[in-house]
Amino acid sequence: MALRASADIVVAGTAMTRFGRHPERGLADLAVEAAGAALADAALAAEDVDALYLGTFLGRSLQGQGVLASVVAQRLGLGPVPTTVVEGACASGGIALRHGVLACRAGAARVVLCVGVDQMTNAPTPAVTTGLAEAFEAGVDRELGLTFPGFFGLVASAHAARYGTTRDHLSAVSVKNRGHGAGNPDAIFATPVDLATVSAARPIADPLRLYDCSPIADGAAAAVVCQRADAPRPGRSIAVLACEQGSGPAATAAVEDLCTFRATTAAATAAYRNASVAPSDVDVVELHDCFTIAEIVDSEDLGVLPRGEAAEAIAAHATRLGGEAATVNPSGGLLSRGHPVGATGLAQIHELVCQLRGEARNQVPGARVALAHNLGGSGATASVTLLAA
Amino acid sequence: MALRASADIVVAGTAMTRFGRHPERGLADLAVEAAGAALADAALAAEDVDALYLGTFLGRSLQGQGVLASVVAQRLGLGPVPTTVVEGACASGGIALRHGVLACRAGAARVVLCVGVDQMTNAPTPAVTTGLAEAFEAGVDRELGLTFPGFFGLVASAHAARYGTTRDHLSAVSVKNRGHGAGNPDAIFATPVDLATVSAARPIADPLRLYDCSPIADGAAAAVVCQRADAPRPGRSIAVLACEQGSGPAATAAVEDLCTFRATTAAATAAYRNASVAPSDVDVVELHDCFTIAEIVDSEDLGVLPRGEAAEAIAAHATRLGGEAATVNPSGGLLSRGHPVGATGLAQIHELVCQLRGEARNQVPGARVALAHNLGGSGATASVTLLAA
Repeated sequence: MALRASADIVVAGTAMTRFGRHPERGLADLAVEAAGAALADAALAAEDVDALYLGTFLGRSLQGQGVLASVVAQRLGLGPVPTTVVEGACASGGIALRHGVLACRAGAARVVLCVGVDQMTNAPTPAVTTGLAEAFEAGVDRELGLTFPGFFGLVASAHAARYGTTRDHLSAVSVKNRGHGAGNPDAIFATPVDLATVSAARPIADPLRLYDCSPIADGAAAAVVCQRADAPRPGRSIAVLACEQGSGPAATAAVEDLCTFRATTAAATAAYRNASVAPSDVDVVELHDCFTIAEIVDSEDLGVLPRGEAAEAIAAHATRLGGEAATVNPSGGLLSRGHPVGATGLAQIHELVCQLRGEARNQVPGARVALAHNLGGSGATASVTLLAA
Repeated sequence: MALRASADIVVAGTAMTRFGRHPERGLADLAVEAAGAALADAALAAEDVDALYLGTFLGRSLQGQGVLASVVAQRLGLGPVPTTVVEGACASGGIALRHGVLACRAGAARVVLCVGVDQMTNAPTPAVTTGLAEAFEAGVDRELGLTFPGFFGLVASAHAARYGTTRDHLSAVSVKNRGHGAGNPDAIFATPVDLATVSAARPIADPLRLYDCSPIADGAAAAVVCQRADAPRPGRSIAVLACEQGSGPAATAAVEDLCTFRATTAAATAAYRNASVAPSDVDVVELHDCFTIAEIVDSEDLGVLPRGEAAEAIAAHATRLGGEAATVNPSGGLLSRGHPVGATGLAQIHELVCQLRGEARNQVPGARVALAHNLGGSGATASVTLLAA
């Protein structure tokens, strides 16, 4: 099926809160901060906004807050515009962006505010674990005690068995991303780690160890989407070449192959086709490294690195800033920045917009084409967005 | 802002489960039943579906199920298509439909399955009450003990003070809708009630009594949306003239006027404008009678009856089948059918599609234009859809 290109739609502004602990603030406070800053970055005001999409995954489980899109719209002083909460587990932020793009493409809105938010550090750890496990299909995995570190441990074991992925391969992902994240003022972990530390850290879910896992956090991120003609700062606006979604099983027994995510490959295939872009055209990538093994699988699923060769290539620094492949997670990724789940997809967009404006902290020289990849649950959903300067 | 018309988009098929108690079945089971039946009604198959939107409000609170759109898509055997959960409290079903329409208008999908579902009767009543209160903004109303019957009791008191709305006016809404719903095989309450019984029923939240309140229920409803050219049965397909959303406060203290819902008026204004339809053109309406007073306010907000005159007109049978105004809630509405919250918006669409096909149980003779209105929370969000034969 031929889909229309989105090249006339732009991201006109982005922002994020610091990802970390915000015990003194509420879910809506964080969302309002990021949304207001994204509007300011776009040089737009509350009265310019025609619709709001808000992605959150744990807002219901941990804060018991429904209709959060309306709550945030009221706090921002928007008019009586359409406000919609979208949920796709940890891909909720990427899905919020996609629906901003769709609303513009459909002619239903000129300017759309897309916000992602979650607040996790106030809750007891068991509540967070239980809340995150709502991304598994009820009835099997979670009743058997499977957690997300456990699921990605299975992925790591499967990848090791098929491709020979080693402990040091996993560690190299963490070392790279913590290196990229060093000094990032928005990150929860802004210090580097070395290979020996990562490989010897305490076990979490075999074979994954502490630094293989992205940290929970509180935070929000936002993007303003509109037609280029409606962007007050067209020169600072970044084209959305494609913004696609895919889906897959939410139950581990239904996953045919643990070394790939069908949701990612479906979204990536659609995005590359609709943007007329090849993986080799991409200069900079923010992908969903919720665990080190996820970055290896994602890099292969997205075509950033060849299938079965990603682990070795990452260890050889191919995706490090200045490496021979596209730079992956120059922000530090989820492993460094932290993963307030609903916010992650829009934090990725914020980093890539900075890259394509030439203003990033870890600037990829001459970056022209960027890819964001946000994964939900054990591959139940994923979004892939292609942006261009 | 000029918006594009949606007149090329149709509802190609609809279905609903019986609304009632389904203790032996899960949330996904109900959604799959309605979705499969809607596809069959459209003469389409799982492989034809390009995207799935699922509206649920209590799926997280009561069943702890995230990514339900992906779970349902897998169960239906869809491909790796975009799957999105949308949430806008009790308007989640109407919002799911709207996003099916937007995805088609944006050219992102040819055929979209829109599903609404909730399962409420398995849970203890306090859990249901707490879950529903997640539609209030955290921090004030619910911490003070306000519930939705309490909120709509305030609305009834305000309406009585301004317009002289009486106990018998409220009761007349229940009598009409229970009369319309009598014999409806899909309804939880398929028997009529008389005015004396309604007016003397036990108090729930002053001035509201038992039969002023829609019953909780389990159930699902679904609609298939596509371009008319993609509908295998174009003659049975119903045009979507407009499908709009509005928003308002989720905190009672922020509601400027308890006798109107800003979310409804914003959505209705946009829908009438975009469809080039006047309220007087509408033949049949399914509106959000979560409480009797809501039908009175909604009828005024939608322009079905003049402001301040709805209570008297309803009592004089203007909106009863065969009355002089548009027929309102020929299905029996939420008061008779029951209100499995996420499913309601799509059950309304199912009834109106039957009406516009000339196949409804309580057929409005010659019905050509229909309106569906779905309200979320205390007016935090609303959707208004205009359909035409």
